[in-house]
Amino acid sequence: MKVRTEPSLSLKAPVAVLGCGLVGSSWAALFLHYGINVQAWDPDQSARDSLNERIKNPMFQLASMAQKPKSPGVLSVHSDMSHAVRGVFFAQENVPEIVEIKNDVFINFECYAPSTSLIASSTSGLTWSFLSSKMKNPERLLTAHPFNPLHLIPLVEMYCPATETLDLAEKLYLKIGRVPIRLKREATGHIANRLASALWREAVNIVAEGIADVEAVDSALVNGPGLRWAVMGAHMTYHLGGGQGGMENYLRHLGPSQVERWAELGTPILTKEICEALIAGVETQSGGRSFQELEKIRDEVLIKILQFRNEKT
Amino acid sequence: MKVRTEPSLSLKAPVAVLGCGLVGSSWAALFLHYGINVQAWDPDQSARDSLNERIKNPMFQLASMAQKPKSPGVLSVHSDMSHAVRGVFFAQENVPEIVEIKNDVFINFECYAPSTSLIASSTSGLTWSFLSSKMKNPERLLTAHPFNPLHLIPLVEMYCPATETLDLAEKLYLKIGRVPIRLKREATGHIANRLASALWREAVNIVAEGIADVEAVDSALVNGPGLRWAVMGAHMTYHLGGGQGGMENYLRHLGPSQVERWAELGTPILTKEICEALIAGVETQSGGRSFQELEKIRDEVLIKILQFRNEKT
Repeated sequence: MKVRTEPSLSLKAPVAVLGCGLVGSSWAALFLHYGINVQAWDPDQSARDSLNERIKNPMFQLASMAQKPKSPGVLSVHSDMSHAVRGVFFAQENVPEIVEIKNDVFINFECYAPSTSLIASSTSGLTWSFLSSKMKNPERLLTAHPFNPLHLIPLVEMYCPATETLDLAEKLYLKIGRVPIRLKREATGHIANRLASALWREAVNIVAEGIADVEAVDSALVNGPGLRWAVMGAHMTYHLGGGQGGMENYLRHLGPSQVERWAELGTPILTKEICEALIAGVETQSGGRSFQELEKIRDEVLIKILQFRNEKT
Repeated sequence: MKVRTEPSLSLKAPVAVLGCGLVGSSWAALFLHYGINVQAWDPDQSARDSLNERIKNPMFQLASMAQKPKSPGVLSVHSDMSHAVRGVFFAQENVPEIVEIKNDVFINFECYAPSTSLIASSTSGLTWSFLSSKMKNPERLLTAHPFNPLHLIPLVEMYCPATETLDLAEKLYLKIGRVPIRLKREATGHIANRLASALWREAVNIVAEGIADVEAVDSALVNGPGLRWAVMGAHMTYHLGGGQGGMENYLRHLGPSQVERWAELGTPILTKEICEALIAGVETQSGGRSFQELEKIRDEVLIKILQFRNEKT
């Protein structure tokens, strides 16, 4: 397949945001912030009605602290998907994770959007092969999974077998301050959710085995490896851990002990008792603070971290 | 056993730092920075000779950006351990991870240090039961594992069956800006290295399975979950991921899919090919930068992150 890339990606063409729940609203806020016009669609009237208000939410405005836009894009909201995709070069799909609903969106997209335009699915759990199977031209689709809270966390994990598709999507995501990553082959959970899931399995195991309580596990992560992983990846950390000989030295001397440790890690079962311990633990940790308060603290620190990381790189 | 806590932990009494490699030097730099006098011991003359210079290393001085000391402690360096532990209320042991060497240090400690003083082992791989087995009074020992780079990362993971021992150690660690965490029972790898090991297993698996390359995995972590874990722990993240119903809602609706995902995670074998891919990947990622340069970038960003987290809490 040939995807004809738009000559300059001038951002004068609009993008479509299809599905305007939390994920769609976040994408819309991001595109608009970076001066891109958005044509949003949602079949649900209350979602459409509230979109304008939601993107003015202080939560999304926080994102603008990182980089002031020259002039924000213009939002239009549509009840008919054929109107939302008219004249776009790119669409970001964020409808529920139900394959029939997604398939309908892709079929409508191929009917009504310009023939050179692409569609990216924000799916977290479904694969490209599965999602593209009903499309006339599957290589117009890529999976492009953002990471919550997506107006702040820059990661976008992309997969499509067609390099041209990824090249265009990457250009767009870079323009809106994202860090797009390419998978070499599709995998459930992409990269980040696999890593998060692997870590959480052991975090649950530590609680289940009575080694430490929920708060201690979270505090150890935030004040230990999590802090370090905001700056340097896991592979690079072991590279530095190997001293002057780096990863090669690490693997030679400590590879076998890592393999032994892997064998000692647990595979917990989510029994009633363990679930109750997890629920009680996060309640204690919340200390009566509401979700909004917890999210606000998280977001304020995230913004500051992103600010220096930008200064440093 | 009764541990008589020092009346005020006035910090007028010195602490001993036993073993002055990288870990011991970092502990010494920290104690001195917070105004505590340090009596350091190392059997190796070159380690003793270089200690004074090493703690003036710009790497350690960076730590002072976070909080200026009123007046730094005084360092004395000893070749005879009996001199180094004279009059101390606390000793931090950092000799090599060889049980015979550690046992000798604990025996000497019990011979020569004040009878109410405690000794904390920085061990990453050995357990309290194993280490304390030759001591007359095992409850004078705690394991207190710091996390590299320990002059910046605040985590200290503590274990001892005697609460009084942990109470005193906790007071001291809080005074030097650490975040001490208590394990309820001992475990190889404590908490943080178990979490790090669990995550790295999947990070290696993703490379081994050809899902993504080393750089993409590290970038996904640093720009995704790692960034979030610098602010909020894994359990709390799933609590917020559950929406208004929190962890209970998450476990009810998404618990089963997490268990399925756990079953899909890999157990890679460190074959020659995979080791070569890891080594090549971190080399590419280093982009010709030296270890010192990579550590300097890491440390500068870590300091900034710690600065606001302190402002926020």
